[in-house]
Amino acid sequence: MMNIAVDAMGGDDAPHAVVHGAVQACYELGIDITLVGDEEAVSRSLGGNKDLKNIKVRPCKEVILMDESPLKAVRKKKDSSIVVAFDLLKTGEADAVISAGNSGATLAAGILTLGKEKGVERPGLACVIPGDKGRVILIDVGGNVDCRPVHMLYFGIMADAFAKACLGLKDPKVGLLSIGQEAGKGNEQVRQAYNLLKDSPLNFVGNVEGRDIFSGRVQIVVCDGFVGNVALKISEGLGEAITSRLKEEMMSSFIGKILMSSGRRFFRKIEDSLDYAEYGGAPILGIKGVGIVCHGSSSPKAIKNAIKLAVNYVENRVQERLSREIATLQK
Amino acid sequence: MMNIAVDAMGGDDAPHAVVHGAVQACYELGIDITLVGDEEAVSRSLGGNKDLKNIKVRPCKEVILMDESPLKAVRKKKDSSIVVAFDLLKTGEADAVISAGNSGATLAAGILTLGKEKGVERPGLACVIPGDKGRVILIDVGGNVDCRPVHMLYFGIMADAFAKACLGLKDPKVGLLSIGQEAGKGNEQVRQAYNLLKDSPLNFVGNVEGRDIFSGRVQIVVCDGFVGNVALKISEGLGEAITSRLKEEMMSSFIGKILMSSGRRFFRKIEDSLDYAEYGGAPILGIKGVGIVCHGSSSPKAIKNAIKLAVNYVENRVQERLSREIATLQK
Repeated sequence: MMNIAVDAMGGDDAPHAVVHGAVQACYELGIDITLVGDEEAVSRSLGGNKDLKNIKVRPCKEVILMDESPLKAVRKKKDSSIVVAFDLLKTGEADAVISAGNSGATLAAGILTLGKEKGVERPGLACVIPGDKGRVILIDVGGNVDCRPVHMLYFGIMADAFAKACLGLKDPKVGLLSIGQEAGKGNEQVRQAYNLLKDSPLNFVGNVEGRDIFSGRVQIVVCDGFVGNVALKISEGLGEAITSRLKEEMMSSFIGKILMSSGRRFFRKIEDSLDYAEYGGAPILGIKGVGIVCHGSSSPKAIKNAIKLAVNYVENRVQERLSREIATLQK
Repeated sequence: MMNIAVDAMGGDDAPHAVVHGAVQACYELGIDITLVGDEEAVSRSLGGNKDLKNIKVRPCKEVILMDESPLKAVRKKKDSSIVVAFDLLKTGEADAVISAGNSGATLAAGILTLGKEKGVERPGLACVIPGDKGRVILIDVGGNVDCRPVHMLYFGIMADAFAKACLGLKDPKVGLLSIGQEAGKGNEQVRQAYNLLKDSPLNFVGNVEGRDIFSGRVQIVVCDGFVGNVALKISEGLGEAITSRLKEEMMSSFIGKILMSSGRRFFRKIEDSLDYAEYGGAPILGIKGVGIVCHGSSSPKAIKNAIKLAVNYVENRVQERLSREIATLQK
């Protein structure tokens, strides 16, 4: 039976939102879940679900906070929920780890506990974005804020492997995020990464611009972790701003009010198509194991979908296929 | 009488879109305009408006293309429309320059022809973004792709001066674009810029995240030109993706069709609030003169609004106030 280790203490509404998402996943997917965290707090959140056969609690005493320095915190807090969750993966007690806590610390704990895939210097965080014409993988979205060009080449290689193994894409098109499509455009780092990607076996189509994240021109967009994280948060912020303005406008006009009252289904469709929670979390690519990072503000639904993504990842042996692809592409 | 020099050859639909925008501005604002470009092509676009008293054509033979290296092109093509437009500003024949052409070349021509404000090493491109709670200035949006932290400090200083002098904001809040609000978050460049901004006389509130461009938390967002340009194009791309999906959804549902046919005004309001064209172009801050860069895909309306922005800029003596503010803030 598959077992997913869930960091119960990570996220803005932890452990409540996390525990509820885990319980939902238990019911829907029929898998085992180990909630890692403060025993009392987790039990309280479990409430009537305390006696569920599929849910275990693995108590631990420490928590890594959102503003702690990732590497330092992971080294110091050996009994923190993130570190203990990865320990369970290492010893074989769990098949994957989910955390909505400090994403840098989750990445660091994954690297220190499980180790990196051969040849990979910097594992990356890949986010699957609901594009206008299918899903788009943006990598890196926050793991690595000071990258060298070779790290960006590996982001491309790992995302390519993930896209093939987990999303079922054949020969996905890879673009490098820059400020113009021509080869010379971008900063020094991007210009060098361009040359590395061009000479790789990837289906590299060249530079793409911010708008191409949603245009469907490519299925993989490579960037450094600083730019990727900014990009992701801008998308979220703008999506929220637009839908909230849409609602305001609707309530302020007669025709809008009619739509709001009789067309909720229609409206929900628009919101869903912008909802990152639908796509679960961001997998850490390049470590020897399955780790999924969730947004700090994850709802129970987002946690449940991240667990679903992890199950998909494990069932389809994405990890092994990823190692194979990385090895092949390095030849 | 105020005279605006307009690069007639810049932009995807040049000279057509540019000339039409200039003619509209002429009628609406009652100013003089000098169209700089290929005499025959511009005359053709002018058509029946050829004899308008307020419009002159200043012929030139060269054009700087979108994919040319800015500095090289400006140095080589002395008779290009961008360079000649700035020449008119330098000799006092024009009060401001508008171009929808190669933005790097427009910046370079402005710097080389007019010179930089005292103390400013890198002029920046400021974009006024329609935020959810008022306008937000994003700087730099593409002028400088490889910045040092001190350049980012000056972006903040110049935007502060512009916000006070042109947008009438009192003591605007300044944020530094990063991947977390805490002081230590960001890449090396951002962490250093943070310290410089913290010690400046600006109303610096610390790091902000991508979502804050639309949240109204700050009125000025400072970033390097690479990140700023990516940010801008993501916003545009996502805005377009959302409105196009909205239209599709509307046409596919009964209630949506009713809305489309009877609620066009409502729908246009949503689109307008996302329309960058409403806000004209991006002013170049830090050069000794008024230069406005427009989007390459500018419609006649966008060109007209950029001309309006230039007129506002000149009438309110923003340039002098900007020099004064920069000098004061440097003390």
